[in-house]
Amino acid sequence: MEVKSLRILVLGGDGYLGWPTALHLSRRGHEVSVVDNFTRRHYDHEMGVDSLVPIVSLQQRVRRWEEVSGLHIEMYVGDLTDADFVDRTLRACVPEAIVHFAEQRSAPYSMIDRRHAVYTQVNNVVGNLNLLYAIAEQDPSIHLVKLGTMGEYGTPNIDIEEGFIEVTHKGRTDVLPYPKQPGSFYHLSKVHDSHNIMFACRIWGLRSTDLNQGIVYGQQTEETALHPDLATRFDYDAVFGTVLNRFCVQAVVGHPLTVYGEGGQTRGMLDIRDTLACVELAATNPPEPGEYRVFNQFTESFSVNQMAEMVAEAHSGPVRIEHLDPPRVELQQHYYRAAHTKLLDLGLVPHLLEPSTIRSLLEVVERHRDRVDLQAVLPTVRWSATSSSLPTAKGLAEQVR
Amino acid sequence: MEVKSLRILVLGGDGYLGWPTALHLSRRGHEVSVVDNFTRRHYDHEMGVDSLVPIVSLQQRVRRWEEVSGLHIEMYVGDLTDADFVDRTLRACVPEAIVHFAEQRSAPYSMIDRRHAVYTQVNNVVGNLNLLYAIAEQDPSIHLVKLGTMGEYGTPNIDIEEGFIEVTHKGRTDVLPYPKQPGSFYHLSKVHDSHNIMFACRIWGLRSTDLNQGIVYGQQTEETALHPDLATRFDYDAVFGTVLNRFCVQAVVGHPLTVYGEGGQTRGMLDIRDTLACVELAATNPPEPGEYRVFNQFTESFSVNQMAEMVAEAHSGPVRIEHLDPPRVELQQHYYRAAHTKLLDLGLVPHLLEPSTIRSLLEVVERHRDRVDLQAVLPTVRWSATSSSLPTAKGLAEQVR
Repeated sequence: MEVKSLRILVLGGDGYLGWPTALHLSRRGHEVSVVDNFTRRHYDHEMGVDSLVPIVSLQQRVRRWEEVSGLHIEMYVGDLTDADFVDRTLRACVPEAIVHFAEQRSAPYSMIDRRHAVYTQVNNVVGNLNLLYAIAEQDPSIHLVKLGTMGEYGTPNIDIEEGFIEVTHKGRTDVLPYPKQPGSFYHLSKVHDSHNIMFACRIWGLRSTDLNQGIVYGQQTEETALHPDLATRFDYDAVFGTVLNRFCVQAVVGHPLTVYGEGGQTRGMLDIRDTLACVELAATNPPEPGEYRVFNQFTESFSVNQMAEMVAEAHSGPVRIEHLDPPRVELQQHYYRAAHTKLLDLGLVPHLLEPSTIRSLLEVVERHRDRVDLQAVLPTVRWSATSSSLPTAKGLAEQVR
Repeated sequence: MEVKSLRILVLGGDGYLGWPTALHLSRRGHEVSVVDNFTRRHYDHEMGVDSLVPIVSLQQRVRRWEEVSGLHIEMYVGDLTDADFVDRTLRACVPEAIVHFAEQRSAPYSMIDRRHAVYTQVNNVVGNLNLLYAIAEQDPSIHLVKLGTMGEYGTPNIDIEEGFIEVTHKGRTDVLPYPKQPGSFYHLSKVHDSHNIMFACRIWGLRSTDLNQGIVYGQQTEETALHPDLATRFDYDAVFGTVLNRFCVQAVVGHPLTVYGEGGQTRGMLDIRDTLACVELAATNPPEPGEYRVFNQFTESFSVNQMAEMVAEAHSGPVRIEHLDPPRVELQQHYYRAAHTKLLDLGLVPHLLEPSTIRSLLEVVERHRDRVDLQAVLPTVRWSATSSSLPTAKGLAEQVR
């Protein structure tokens, strides 16, 4: 399918998803620029952890991409909480669409203590506000493709819809924003963003797509596979890693898969390659001026137990499953059914989670098993405590901010 | 009725409502402390406006109250965004209930420009987060009585309920947070607070009452009437004043009452004396540990046109009503029906808005008519613009933060 080439600015273009998204959009013929302030790499230093797959600097990545593909990606280094930087970058880049990945995106990180909660909300909310103002002032037709999270909805006892729900109450009917019950100060920051964006679309006529994304798995994309220097992160630690990655690491090194609590927690998930496809579908099919729309960006739902069993089955060796005291305050058994048809309607063809997908993840881990730090895997942040000491960070977390 | 005496900390105790609330709780037998950082007085300097009724310093007010009533009010001066100050104050005061008025509370102020929007959200959200952490760490049984606003709900086309709504959807039913459609970056900050508080109650077992207050009118209470030095503010300017005050000022000085747009905007309202009664009812009837409850704190609903007509009728001289280009982006005709039974169930006996109430407000204005600055009344902040220049502030607003 022929798509219109757009000038796209990817915020957080050095991150796990931002980088492969930038490559994908570049290869698909868009004119891509990236923004990053390298805070994600700083969190690794703070936590004393590292991506399992080694990653090179953004400067090296961009040079390698130019060498491999002949395509140029422009790079801006700075912080979205710096409004002048945001203004200058938009003026220099003149984007038609902005893909906004540039937020602190770990729930446990936001729950370490007061400082990390405040940091997460201020960083995410202020960065996003600066962006809304810059768009409104420079060109309200710029399409903001904002990364939200399925975690904004929580686990209500009714079906989750895509951003809005028709409510009939005392004989009258209205379509209202879907009620949000987020489960961490991070997820709350995304709810705050959503409300702010909806309002900006209403008063200034901005257009935005809020991608309420599920949990992403996978590490390789068509583009990152072209050269080791193009690799993206693989996080398996307790703070930034996600459950499927952790299970794969534990299976390979012969550690029991650690399920938190009963393991009935069910979440929407998607393959990293589908993230890239979804972002492009959103960007190339923009909403009307003034329209705020929400897409639920995931392809399948699994419980933690189901994921543990899938990993156990896909792995060639013996695998034991262990249930730990749950660090989060969340329902361990609950109803979960969430709509996710809008991206399918735009043409998304999902990569479903198959044994071959898990085997390819296990192979990634095998290749880098000498880099596994098992100490990084155990949960250290407890939702019920107001302050968690991080053994990996040896108390430094307190001093960082 | 005999009520249990509580140790109550009033945050924002130097403000329009915080001060008379502190006096009321003190006279009712509670042990009252107040916190303020005098930011509200600073906003006056920034905007070049002043309370119509002169107010003395907090130190003078507290001394006068002790002289008049024999009752002591303890005073803490500091900023809630300073977490150490919050911690130290709670340790020194050891409150059983905290009444939190200490937020930037003007919608137009939050809409001046990017800096004021960011300031409002950071100030309100961070102050409130610091408070939640301090309560959780020191004593989760402290009851947080938080001032929210009816403006959090916006104007949905169905009845507004008190914080939560039962939704039946695709054959299943759940009680969910009422969907929010706030109308300014200020109102958004209160929505962010509400979500953060609800979460803190869930994970840490805090208890909180969120008072979604309507627009307050009135200036005198039983306690402030005891001495001129005990007076509270009377704001009529375009940024911090509210509509009824403005109409009274305009009527007295012979200026047309300025209705924004069609004037069909309908809002919940209440008498300042009912605010004090509601806060005490909430404080003395605390929720269960872990409970987050919402009371809609208003007694009657009026459209802007109805208020203009009431002022015109109550005023002895001729009054003209003028419709201005509306500065806000809001519906000018809409459905509005909001539940407000929970405080009535606890025993609230409302002071309804009667001609005598408006006449007493007109008398307040008459007494201070030489202090009226008509330039301060005209709206200068437009929702559709990302930056408003304030003639009263002579461009200084830009430089303040």
